[in-house]
Amino acid sequence: MTKVYLAGPDVFLPDALEIGRRKAGLCARYGLTGLFPLDNAVALAAHDASLQIFRGNQAMMDAADAIIANLTPFRGPSADAGTVYELGYMAGRGKLVLGYSNDPANYVDRTRRFETITERDSLLIGADGLAVEDFGLPDNLMLIHCLELHGAPLVTPPAAPADIWHDLTTFEACVQIAAKRLRPKAAS
Amino acid sequence: MTKVYLAGPDVFLPDALEIGRRKAGLCARYGLTGLFPLDNAVALAAHDASLQIFRGNQAMMDAADAIIANLTPFRGPSADAGTVYELGYMAGRGKLVLGYSNDPANYVDRTRRFETITERDSLLIGADGLAVEDFGLPDNLMLIHCLELHGAPLVTPPAAPADIWHDLTTFEACVQIAAKRLRPKAAS
Repeated sequence: MTKVYLAGPDVFLPDALEIGRRKAGLCARYGLTGLFPLDNAVALAAHDASLQIFRGNQAMMDAADAIIANLTPFRGPSADAGTVYELGYMAGRGKLVLGYSNDPANYVDRTRRFETITERDSLLIGADGLAVEDFGLPDNLMLIHCLELHGAPLVTPPAAPADIWHDLTTFEACVQIAAKRLRPKAAS
Repeated sequence: MTKVYLAGPDVFLPDALEIGRRKAGLCARYGLTGLFPLDNAVALAAHDASLQIFRGNQAMMDAADAIIANLTPFRGPSADAGTVYELGYMAGRGKLVLGYSNDPANYVDRTRRFETITERDSLLIGADGLAVEDFGLPDNLMLIHCLELHGAPLVTPPAAPADIWHDLTTFEACVQIAAKRLRPKAAS
């Protein structure tokens, strides 16, 4: 079976298990097996629970042929750090790397939601005094171009859906791309 | 020569070139060659400047034996997304992965600086309604345990230095670890 690792801050949702089931169900519809991090059996009370989760997620990624990463901004203008780590890990392993964001805004506009941006010598400067990346991309250029070169361009909706954490339209678009790339005969 | 890729939001500092020179100088002191992203020759006015930067950074990472990542929180409770991507990429490539943060606070306390955290069913919930990871770690568990298993534990100061963006004490500690691991004979 062709396996896809389902990365995202979805694991932090109150209904994370249900989202995982919906995502796996969409994968199955296209002949793919979705691996959701919460499928790891981890005793959360264990003293080394976080290490067990890491090991479980890494084993899942190593077993997977592709990653579909939810890169919707999380607690700031950028995607969730854990998800971005996994994106990089899978790119480094030479796997197919796909991602979506339910927020189509570019990085400068996303940053403006949290702080005032000023202009100095035609550079945009954030409240921290550090430059705000200004290439018209939705997030840091490493993430965006990684997707183009190791998979397919970031999938975004024309406008943010009413429920950015539960609308799976852009996720399903990624599943379709994964199926076409990884199971070309079945898809044709 | 043993090469180390120097990742971090340092590239967004107003004195990024100077920081890059200081970091490369510290590497040289321990017999290592530091590769700083801004060393890539990129025409920033080019229509594909961001893609050129990506390609340059990826080529640097592929040429490097290790990464030292500045994981000091950036525009939110977590590390810079581009840096985290590079951490994952290097781990995926099987390279030595080291990192430091000049902010030793744990993730829950970092998040509290930006939003109110509530408790529900003994889970910490952020302003977005999503759970706040609560393992007593400084950042998302994927980053922290990646360092332990692919390199060395995150290096942090006992307390945040006065200038978190220019104090290179924790960076130098990472350089020392890199030198010991990659050039054991020279270091002994």
